[in-house]
Amino acid sequence: MKVLITGIDGYSGWPLALHLLARGHEVVGIDNFVTRRRVREVGSWSATPIPSFARRQAAVREVLGKEITFYRGDLGRYEVVEKVLATERPDAIVHLAEQRSAPYSMIDVRHAVATQIENVTSTLHLLYAMRAYAPDAHLVKMGTMGEYGTPKVPIPEGFFEVEYRGGKDTLPFPRQAGSWYHWSKVFDSGDVMFASRIWNLRATDVMQGVIYGIRTPEMTDRRLLTRFDFDETWGTVVNRFIAQAILGVPLTVYGRGGQTRGFIALEDSVQSLRIAIEHPARPGEYRVFNQFDAAYSVNHLAQTASRIATELGYSATIAHPPNPRVEAEEHGYEPVHEHLYELGYRRTRTLEEVIREIFTTLRRYRGRLVAKQHVVQPAIDWRQGDNRGSLGTRAPTPPGPPPSSGAA
Amino acid sequence: MKVLITGIDGYSGWPLALHLLARGHEVVGIDNFVTRRRVREVGSWSATPIPSFARRQAAVREVLGKEITFYRGDLGRYEVVEKVLATERPDAIVHLAEQRSAPYSMIDVRHAVATQIENVTSTLHLLYAMRAYAPDAHLVKMGTMGEYGTPKVPIPEGFFEVEYRGGKDTLPFPRQAGSWYHWSKVFDSGDVMFASRIWNLRATDVMQGVIYGIRTPEMTDRRLLTRFDFDETWGTVVNRFIAQAILGVPLTVYGRGGQTRGFIALEDSVQSLRIAIEHPARPGEYRVFNQFDAAYSVNHLAQTASRIATELGYSATIAHPPNPRVEAEEHGYEPVHEHLYELGYRRTRTLEEVIREIFTTLRRYRGRLVAKQHVVQPAIDWRQGDNRGSLGTRAPTPPGPPPSSGAA
Repeated sequence: MKVLITGIDGYSGWPLALHLLARGHEVVGIDNFVTRRRVREVGSWSATPIPSFARRQAAVREVLGKEITFYRGDLGRYEVVEKVLATERPDAIVHLAEQRSAPYSMIDVRHAVATQIENVTSTLHLLYAMRAYAPDAHLVKMGTMGEYGTPKVPIPEGFFEVEYRGGKDTLPFPRQAGSWYHWSKVFDSGDVMFASRIWNLRATDVMQGVIYGIRTPEMTDRRLLTRFDFDETWGTVVNRFIAQAILGVPLTVYGRGGQTRGFIALEDSVQSLRIAIEHPARPGEYRVFNQFDAAYSVNHLAQTASRIATELGYSATIAHPPNPRVEAEEHGYEPVHEHLYELGYRRTRTLEEVIREIFTTLRRYRGRLVAKQHVVQPAIDWRQGDNRGSLGTRAPTPPGPPPSSGAA
Repeated sequence: MKVLITGIDGYSGWPLALHLLARGHEVVGIDNFVTRRRVREVGSWSATPIPSFARRQAAVREVLGKEITFYRGDLGRYEVVEKVLATERPDAIVHLAEQRSAPYSMIDVRHAVATQIENVTSTLHLLYAMRAYAPDAHLVKMGTMGEYGTPKVPIPEGFFEVEYRGGKDTLPFPRQAGSWYHWSKVFDSGDVMFASRIWNLRATDVMQGVIYGIRTPEMTDRRLLTRFDFDETWGTVVNRFIAQAILGVPLTVYGRGGQTRGFIALEDSVQSLRIAIEHPARPGEYRVFNQFDAAYSVNHLAQTASRIATELGYSATIAHPPNPRVEAEEHGYEPVHEHLYELGYRRTRTLEEVIREIFTTLRRYRGRLVAKQHVVQPAIDWRQGDNRGSLGTRAPTPPGPPPSSGAA
């Protein structure tokens, strides 16, 4: 199949591209490199040194003997989206090109607005361009388990049967997101559900758990590594804990640490997306996959990371700074995940194994962690915005790039 | 109380201002006049000739002996919102300044994006400015009953008790909106709910039924009339039917006409908003009011308008053009509305009485209806966009106005 990956330069976009190529699919990508620039905006960088996209393409050619067609462009410009879809007419589109950081969205009003606007706009642009140029393509849209919040009932996959005041219906499960970013994903879900209904589009909405991990089997060469963020803003919790352990600073569990979420290893996330692509939704079907392996509390993750760190010779303590987020710190959490299993998904990686792998891989980049050590501690507060005071004083990095695009 | 009305120049903003002044409240308003310009964009105008805002202020001074403080400005610019809130520090904010037309949002991709972006941005700007300058103010946010769609269970006011797979919780009622515009209101609801939770703001989210009517008791002078839209894009269904009857063209019931919605007379809508303002939500409280009087099918409305038209000497037939929207045409509809009644709201106007009043008032503006007769028939299609072909070829009118603002 020909698969268009938007956000192909990102943490999960890049491993997905490698995996699809290895499976014999054709891969087209688009990216505006804004994540690279926004990670710089908060004073950080990827722990893994990632090459330019042209060098990534060259490495893919040399190591895997495959080609990636690439467009440098911004989905915020409709004419760019139109051009890519009209030229490529993909069978599937995996939409990963969104602002993906909750803390980034909470910095200040401008970052809040930029997050919601960019994410909603890119999705609307894709939907309209699909209607015009690829009405039979299958959209695999990256959402987040965080759309659901932490309700006191089990979390179904998108829809649930309701009996209420004598009536009965199957309804979208209510969303209670916990940041402007998470709300932007809720908004996207609404737009995709509506578009699939009025235009008969095929859509899979992926409620993705928090990803952890640093490599996938296709990364047989250092030049093929994906980015690895460890700062407060862009790094997710497991990855950040391991960076903290290597740095010899306490693992920061926000508040009491009973916060529980769904998690999935990078490699299994890529597997899930591939399965979704290879089993497309029907025309007019909007389906929702809860894409995670297991639910863990932040305390459990910190203890596991800390134990493995100790075994590996690091001294990893755990700290409980005041929670910068507004969220329940002790709660039930019972999400359902059946749809992907029905399509053949099987978990291949364990938490412990991946944590060890991250330690092993990251060790050689310790210098890059040390250089940006100051941005690992939490400073962005849900109530106050940016407490460090350096981020909220400037506008968010524009998504760019300049108008010119085209295969590069 | 000092009440800030955003969108004070609009169909319901203006009557609300007059009503609040008559009740002894202080009124501050902001508007960018984009609705006036966007109604021109689709080739129409208000049936009632509405004066410039400066003349409206002068008429209020002369007729009611009251002052309205007015800012010409765009809520899409955060510095404008900041300035107004920092200067005025209102007790309540009624947020009506949004793109309010479902068909307008369905014209093409640019109108879809403009609608969602403008509406989400203005709300986020207000929320951030409230946090900074008016944290104790009460936000009364205009939503729509259309957020809920037409589920097969009764529609509660925002939240409902759920029992599911052995758990029990009170959750937001699922939203299934029917246009990009209606989804933008769903998005606003999410953002307001979240902000009230993390910042302890007071908020009332008004799920408003479709308004009909042309005047309120405070409009004792022609210069005090509010705008009255009758074109396909900006006119709502009852108002449009009466314009069609006066024009002697068939009343256009889209499809089978079993579509049922909640409706409310303009005067009672204004009453409801005033009651919400005078009974503010508590700090941190996010409450939802379903604000309508009765549910009617489109067929019922057309038959009622047609019968009254005949009595008044018009020959009003009913046509059923293919439905340009994607919606159920026969369905149950059982929304709850209790909260406003608990606060003392009572319906004061009947459908028939208001329809007669619209006929009487509109008769003298027949020439203005005739001049724009061509934009009353449906041309914007949910599946295809603008079928007339004249609207989707240009960008939506920018919200403007130019940077300068300030009390005028």
